[in-house]
Amino acid sequence: MVIKIHGMPYSTCTRRVLTALAEKGASWELVVVDLAKGAHKSPEFLKHQPFGQIPVLEDPDTPGFFMFESRAMCRYVDAKYKGKGTDLMGSTPQETALIETWLSVEISNFDPFASKLVAEVVFKKMYGRGDPDAAVVAELRAGLTKTLDVYETRLATNEYLVGKQFTMADLAHLPYFGMLEAAGAGDIIDAHPNVKKWWGRISSRPSWAKANGK
Amino acid sequence: MVIKIHGMPYSTCTRRVLTALAEKGASWELVVVDLAKGAHKSPEFLKHQPFGQIPVLEDPDTPGFFMFESRAMCRYVDAKYKGKGTDLMGSTPQETALIETWLSVEISNFDPFASKLVAEVVFKKMYGRGDPDAAVVAELRAGLTKTLDVYETRLATNEYLVGKQFTMADLAHLPYFGMLEAAGAGDIIDAHPNVKKWWGRISSRPSWAKANGK
Repeated sequence: MVIKIHGMPYSTCTRRVLTALAEKGASWELVVVDLAKGAHKSPEFLKHQPFGQIPVLEDPDTPGFFMFESRAMCRYVDAKYKGKGTDLMGSTPQETALIETWLSVEISNFDPFASKLVAEVVFKKMYGRGDPDAAVVAELRAGLTKTLDVYETRLATNEYLVGKQFTMADLAHLPYFGMLEAAGAGDIIDAHPNVKKWWGRISSRPSWAKANGK
Repeated sequence: MVIKIHGMPYSTCTRRVLTALAEKGASWELVVVDLAKGAHKSPEFLKHQPFGQIPVLEDPDTPGFFMFESRAMCRYVDAKYKGKGTDLMGSTPQETALIETWLSVEISNFDPFASKLVAEVVFKKMYGRGDPDAAVVAELRAGLTKTLDVYETRLATNEYLVGKQFTMADLAHLPYFGMLEAAGAGDIIDAHPNVKKWWGRISSRPSWAKANGK
């Protein structure tokens, strides 16, 4: 049976998991959680995701099995379909260790700036919560720039974050990197040419198109 | 040959990795990086850790192999000593998935509040950067409380974050949870009795004492 993802088609974290499924050549069923109706705060949903966030993964092959956190779900998907599609976690202990390193960088040094910038500039307006706070935006842009400076050096000698292959470390960046231009950070990307080329490589993958319903 | 950890004895993230090594029954060599002298910003160090932070792991069994990010290093240690000491990543795909879920919760829902609260209340004073900002402290305390509310429910029916065994998900919390009292958050812990009992269980492990040089 196919994995069910309880989420929303345009949610960043939902699309992270769908990209992993597409990389493995796996099918999925997207079960829409209607955030507008507060479905993510219902007692039934909170049983599976106590923080009331999407997505949630349900694997009907193991009845009653639910898990949450999109990056954890990507790892589960890679392990479940081991040997199929793209090997996302490396093939030697050292390669896996470097993928783990850059996955940790994504969550510690990239996401805190990128996701908050997107929230401040894109989502705040979308939900009618007022204009972006200029001081907050400046601070997030400075943090993002520092992180991408490190990426720029790394990507000068590496086609992907870990060597010559697309891995989970690259994949994890897709949803929020894909919104940076809408968040007014196109100039920061332009100032990092190696990062820009890397973004071109990872965002042109069929898996990312499929996760975006294309 | 034993793994070398380039770090500092009292650094939170260094102690996270030493705890993992101790759980596996592995020996290590701690190579002190003198932060006071700016050793973490030297060109030689930045080659291995481009963000200029500690710790860095060097595995002499694979000459020239260096990696960074403490949580990634814990995973490397668990994989390298597979079958020895405590199995930190679970033994079934479902158990591993839940450990991954709660590891992700640690980094997304616990650490951002706990580490910033420690930085604001403990480290700011230590480095002579002035008094804690009351508004910042209040916001971080509110976030931490919300997270521990979820943990409280989880730990009402689970001895550890994932079932009956101590895993990487618990281990990852040790260094910053261990500083919450110094950060004035003892009252928040007291208000969550299941969390308090869990903290007693995980902080009394010999591995944590060993990582603290005891």
